[in-house]
Amino acid sequence: MASAEKAQMHAKHGSSLPYGSLGLRQRHAEPVITSLMTAALERPNLLSLAAGFTDNAVLPVEATAEAAHDLAKAGQVETLQYGLNRGRFGLRQAVVDLLRTFPGEAQLDLEASQVLVTNGSQQALYLTVQLLCDPGDIVLVQAPSYFVFLELLRGLGVRALSVPTWPDGRIDLGALEGLLQELRESRELPRVKLLYLMGVFANPSARCIEEADKIGLAELIGRLGQPLPVIEDMAYRELYFGEPYPARSMLSLPEWRDLPLLYSCSFSKSFASGMKTGYVVSRHAEWLEGMARIKGHQDFGTANYAQALLERLWQRGDYQAQLERVRPHYQHKMRVLTEALEAEGLRELGWQWEAPEGGLLMWLEGPTGFNTAIDSPFYQACLERDVLYVPGDLCFAEGAPHHAVRLSFGTLSEDNLREAAARFVAAARAVG
Amino acid sequence: MASAEKAQMHAKHGSSLPYGSLGLRQRHAEPVITSLMTAALERPNLLSLAAGFTDNAVLPVEATAEAAHDLAKAGQVETLQYGLNRGRFGLRQAVVDLLRTFPGEAQLDLEASQVLVTNGSQQALYLTVQLLCDPGDIVLVQAPSYFVFLELLRGLGVRALSVPTWPDGRIDLGALEGLLQELRESRELPRVKLLYLMGVFANPSARCIEEADKIGLAELIGRLGQPLPVIEDMAYRELYFGEPYPARSMLSLPEWRDLPLLYSCSFSKSFASGMKTGYVVSRHAEWLEGMARIKGHQDFGTANYAQALLERLWQRGDYQAQLERVRPHYQHKMRVLTEALEAEGLRELGWQWEAPEGGLLMWLEGPTGFNTAIDSPFYQACLERDVLYVPGDLCFAEGAPHHAVRLSFGTLSEDNLREAAARFVAAARAVG
Repeated sequence: MASAEKAQMHAKHGSSLPYGSLGLRQRHAEPVITSLMTAALERPNLLSLAAGFTDNAVLPVEATAEAAHDLAKAGQVETLQYGLNRGRFGLRQAVVDLLRTFPGEAQLDLEASQVLVTNGSQQALYLTVQLLCDPGDIVLVQAPSYFVFLELLRGLGVRALSVPTWPDGRIDLGALEGLLQELRESRELPRVKLLYLMGVFANPSARCIEEADKIGLAELIGRLGQPLPVIEDMAYRELYFGEPYPARSMLSLPEWRDLPLLYSCSFSKSFASGMKTGYVVSRHAEWLEGMARIKGHQDFGTANYAQALLERLWQRGDYQAQLERVRPHYQHKMRVLTEALEAEGLRELGWQWEAPEGGLLMWLEGPTGFNTAIDSPFYQACLERDVLYVPGDLCFAEGAPHHAVRLSFGTLSEDNLREAAARFVAAARAVG
Repeated sequence: MASAEKAQMHAKHGSSLPYGSLGLRQRHAEPVITSLMTAALERPNLLSLAAGFTDNAVLPVEATAEAAHDLAKAGQVETLQYGLNRGRFGLRQAVVDLLRTFPGEAQLDLEASQVLVTNGSQQALYLTVQLLCDPGDIVLVQAPSYFVFLELLRGLGVRALSVPTWPDGRIDLGALEGLLQELRESRELPRVKLLYLMGVFANPSARCIEEADKIGLAELIGRLGQPLPVIEDMAYRELYFGEPYPARSMLSLPEWRDLPLLYSCSFSKSFASGMKTGYVVSRHAEWLEGMARIKGHQDFGTANYAQALLERLWQRGDYQAQLERVRPHYQHKMRVLTEALEAEGLRELGWQWEAPEGGLLMWLEGPTGFNTAIDSPFYQACLERDVLYVPGDLCFAEGAPHHAVRLSFGTLSEDNLREAAARFVAAARAVG
């Protein structure tokens, strides 16, 4: 075939790029988070209860500028230089100190070398899945789960399988052991490479895992006969209302001591998502080392200046002060939203939800048979009224119920939360 | 087999993690850049001519603090919020404006939508290889080439193959066409997925590609009969000494207009590597879209605050002022290093090099048969004298000569450059 013909053939058959055949192109669909974030950022009249943003009204832009001033005044020019692939030592030490502030964890025996700084906790999840999983492997996830993680798994060709839960949302350890037994019988157990859990104020359900269940889980994994790495994602841990959730992190539980465990968190929710700085903590040196190697190829280090600002903000006490400021702020906003939904009559339409004890998210279930999916009349009715939510079915690996939604009270002002609630309930009433 | 036995077996056979079989663990060796950077950051007496760092002495920490102050004063709180996956609109527009400042490119017809912001240009390279390549595929690279890119390729299981060059370092277009013909005959041509070039002040050779060769290359690729995406990496472009290099970027050449082309660059060398902010520019929407989708899963956006600072620094004119400050600074340091090497008598030992016209790097060739590899007596002699360089053989995909080194004059002070030169030449003399 002549060159010109070949070129024509390529042009005819679509792509002018010679894609890899592993399917990254096909599987990496436009992430829902991108479209939701784009919609929220580009449509000024839209009131978004979807995007898990923090509140611009309380973002610490002045404290951050003061930290930048401190760095300049102290002549800390190296903050604008490349840093270490694993992250700034001072920030990693701050992470260890931070973890020791939680109840019952003051004695946590960890070192800065057991911390790896990442581009938000999203990169930590991506690196772990790259390290541990082949296409076709299985990752066990909570149900409902963080939909961006589910998309990440699809993007890398990995199957997600839901951890069984009781009707109240707690992990059903007996059913989980049964599921693992079934996988053993179907010879798929060796393909199970990871268990992904959110220990506290889970995205999207705002649920927490009790210490007894964490211990039961460690025992179950110990009986498994093969390594099962576990991520405890604690992204919202510091955003508690009132008191911290009493369960200790798995890192602090002796039952977890010898199991491969990664604690993942971020400064995004607690301080500023614009810093795009997260971190993982693990006693499992091999796991951190494997992630660090891949990160060494992806970017060889998270922005040193952002890390230096966070380190300085921690030293100044501004980080802690910011948390004390935002905790009651988000608690208040949560109450505004839930009271507005009630005042508009959503409970009378058969919807149920519990007020969360922390985080930025609420999980609402419509009446049986109600459909909230992205192609549902309800979604359309909401869009027409300029209000956006996350359809609950996006948060399930499989067997998704279609009657739930995730709402965020993080972004909108009080007035807008009330208006958004009114629009949401009006849409529910219209299609109900 | 009982569970306990199995667990024991796993413990016995090494890993307690169930790695993916694609070999990411094995292939992602500790990147050389990580060990070089770690050595440079952790050994205070070592004088590193290896790490491609910029000079702390001229890092713009005060201007950056002023930009942070501006953002606070103007109430730009959204700078601390999540941004768009593709990057801040204002920064992407600044990139377009920046590209139009080069000679003969004032009319460059590009839009902000054709720019994607990345975590340094390293992430841009990683995303492209993820998008286009399967393990076993081939990427054509300049010889010598950016060794971190060669490691990235190995990490993803991709083969690098050197573009043939003339003895003076220019691309040998005839030999390249011959190589592609050989690949066609061995049926490997469809596996060639990318051509990676550095248009100006290449890492490590500091060479530039003339416009005539860029045009010849476009014609050659047009005759190929299959798409061959090309990256023009311009990381050092703005760090010219005296005048900008006169060749226009491939983006500006009509011969390249309809070929898949990606321009990659970064604010790391021109302003501050601590920002870890790079960018790519392409008219090929499908390529950018594919990269953005994978990025949406890896981190869904580069740190918005770092981008906002750079955008503000551009608006303030501080970015441009910084470049005007550092260009003569690095030119002077280059002269200090080259004069010190000459004064110490390196040329008399049979070493050859040319003074670069921009960038932070010099490429030196020792006498025929000289060995600079990481396991050579010369490397050891340098380490003993507390001076570090990048062994030239790391910069070749295959058939590496062992007599060259890459030296950076970016980091060290004038005095230390002289001292490092003395140590380097003493080591060369000792093993010569």
